[in-house]
Amino acid sequence: MPTPHFRAYLPAMTEPRYTPLVRALPATVPFVGPETQERLRGTPFTARLGANENVFGPPPRAIAAMQAEAAEIWKYGDPESHDLRAALAAHHGVRPENIMVGEGIDGLLGYLVRLLIGDGDPVVTSVGAYPTFNYHVAGFGGVLHTVPYIDDRQDPASLFVKAAEVDAKLVYLCNPDNPMGSWRPGAEIVEALDTLPERSLLVLDEAYVECAPEGTAAAIDADDPRVIRMRTFSKIYGMAGARVGYAIGAPELINAFNKVRNHFGMNRAAQAGALAALADGDWLAHVQAEIATARDRITQIAAANGLTALPSATNFVTIDCGRDGAFAKSVVEALVQRGIFVRMPFAAPQNRCIRVSCGTPADLDAFAEALPGALATARGRSSFSG
Amino acid sequence: MPTPHFRAYLPAMTEPRYTPLVRALPATVPFVGPETQERLRGTPFTARLGANENVFGPPPRAIAAMQAEAAEIWKYGDPESHDLRAALAAHHGVRPENIMVGEGIDGLLGYLVRLLIGDGDPVVTSVGAYPTFNYHVAGFGGVLHTVPYIDDRQDPASLFVKAAEVDAKLVYLCNPDNPMGSWRPGAEIVEALDTLPERSLLVLDEAYVECAPEGTAAAIDADDPRVIRMRTFSKIYGMAGARVGYAIGAPELINAFNKVRNHFGMNRAAQAGALAALADGDWLAHVQAEIATARDRITQIAAANGLTALPSATNFVTIDCGRDGAFAKSVVEALVQRGIFVRMPFAAPQNRCIRVSCGTPADLDAFAEALPGALATARGRSSFSG
Repeated sequence: MPTPHFRAYLPAMTEPRYTPLVRALPATVPFVGPETQERLRGTPFTARLGANENVFGPPPRAIAAMQAEAAEIWKYGDPESHDLRAALAAHHGVRPENIMVGEGIDGLLGYLVRLLIGDGDPVVTSVGAYPTFNYHVAGFGGVLHTVPYIDDRQDPASLFVKAAEVDAKLVYLCNPDNPMGSWRPGAEIVEALDTLPERSLLVLDEAYVECAPEGTAAAIDADDPRVIRMRTFSKIYGMAGARVGYAIGAPELINAFNKVRNHFGMNRAAQAGALAALADGDWLAHVQAEIATARDRITQIAAANGLTALPSATNFVTIDCGRDGAFAKSVVEALVQRGIFVRMPFAAPQNRCIRVSCGTPADLDAFAEALPGALATARGRSSFSG
Repeated sequence: MPTPHFRAYLPAMTEPRYTPLVRALPATVPFVGPETQERLRGTPFTARLGANENVFGPPPRAIAAMQAEAAEIWKYGDPESHDLRAALAAHHGVRPENIMVGEGIDGLLGYLVRLLIGDGDPVVTSVGAYPTFNYHVAGFGGVLHTVPYIDDRQDPASLFVKAAEVDAKLVYLCNPDNPMGSWRPGAEIVEALDTLPERSLLVLDEAYVECAPEGTAAAIDADDPRVIRMRTFSKIYGMAGARVGYAIGAPELINAFNKVRNHFGMNRAAQAGALAALADGDWLAHVQAEIATARDRITQIAAANGLTALPSATNFVTIDCGRDGAFAKSVVEALVQRGIFVRMPFAAPQNRCIRVSCGTPADLDAFAEALPGALATARGRSSFSG
């Protein structure tokens, strides 16, 4: 309700004239941040294992590069991210024209959806796949069509059949998958591309691919106009807070981003940090080893509690809690209450699981200590309600 | 032309199915970055005075905060920017609900336009005012209606008359003005608000207001639904490369940004840096003094070359070169050739001027040294062509 003061200078207008689409959009947020939960709890988390951040951090030289560039922060970043794109092109054996750098994969997905999707345009994804992609599709008026996971894995074949059925402009596939940690060999995706409808563009989100077994990255020509791939410095490179993602695709599509993107949107220190991180292959191997160790540990902790951890090609492990979504939700809540930030898949039947990011040994000690009590609490609630 | 290899796996599709709007958009960029110009020149600029960056930089404590937070960059930033919003609210004597933090004013203008403007929706601005706003309006299908500057100043009265005439959803007013450096007393804008059409929302861009005389900031109630104000850490706070801007407005409008924004779009170190910068009032006074000194110096350099500098309430000075846009363009080009990065207004008659950011004494020495030769070159060209 407007206050009288408020009403005084506004005789008629009640709210701005939003577009019909915006008026219809819900005020939902894909993810509630851990800081928000900490403020609600009144105390910080002991272990931050819910957002698939990389606790092992970026290479020290990337931190040093960001620190050095902080003193130059009075300058706007290069709107072309020229040096970073050149380095990424060399890294991937493609041309700079195949690379678009943006404000994380989230930012790039927003631009991509905006380029293709308008009111009523069909888009295909999997039930329970990355909600921020769905948020962008809804935000530009697209209509989502979904297929289920098969054996907890996204299924290119059924995604592409659905794409043909609805004449999808855009198809989303995340490999390895978030939130399940599952994956397909790259060769399987390349083969499936033959069945991608000619009028559909595949967005292949490879945010976690550097955590996956050799051969998981699909060997797709960067100039192939059927696919745009998304990569990030948020996961293996440990720079989630920097907001640096990039897309690899055909030059014409990459160039189209220039029609809509926030040209001066990149943080200058983040550009420098990403450039330094990319050059440090040793650190990458170090983090891969740390992640492998942590995955094993999470798997052991799950087993010690009578739960089954799913195989993972990511920097997190998804644990099957053995009952339904309500039970897993109770486990998440009980862990959060005990200072362990974790999340869970959004949709059935994957929501029988909880999702635990690869932590430091201390993080996982805290998780191991909290899990038995959390399970007991959840089982108590479950027997009360059932 | 597609290569044979390229054609092999693409029998039919020639390009992605962009929206009709995107297909119609030109591939223009509001501003070419100085780094791009340096790459074209093959050598760095001696003085970087073209992007209204603040060469005096952020407070040392803000740099230190960003450097410290670089070590925590593995974590996503708080998607609510809670602490920064709380500090900004206290700073302005408003509530956090009145504040939206975003990826610079550019990012926030994009979100705002997206909230209100769809295909064919009318928007009003001044001829030659901030091109990035126009870029966003075009990017969402809006139709720009313009009024001229009056005496090199944006004119609220004629903007609002035009808004009534075209039933504008959004009206853009920048005070102080970029690119002219001119300004209106805040009281004049408040008074003019009585003539803002009830169905129009005013976006009041106050990016440079901390560089302006006391009383330039319009005393508008943050809950006033007729206006949304834009502020930034890019100018007086010297953090252009960090990408931190904020909007002040009625809670309902501020909350609407949550329907469309990139929730995890903020760089974590930038959030920390802005928080530290805001707390350092002494540094603000220091920079204001440096800017005042630099403005005087630029004015003197102009006078020494027979040119007239316009009064400025910003961190740049606009110099009337005394002839037409072609001549001023020659002056800009000749300065750029001599290693001095400057820009100029885009539209006549303001494009008779060049725009010089407040530099260090060394920057302005370089400008003073280059200007006579640049003017001579431009005059030579002008006499050749005329």
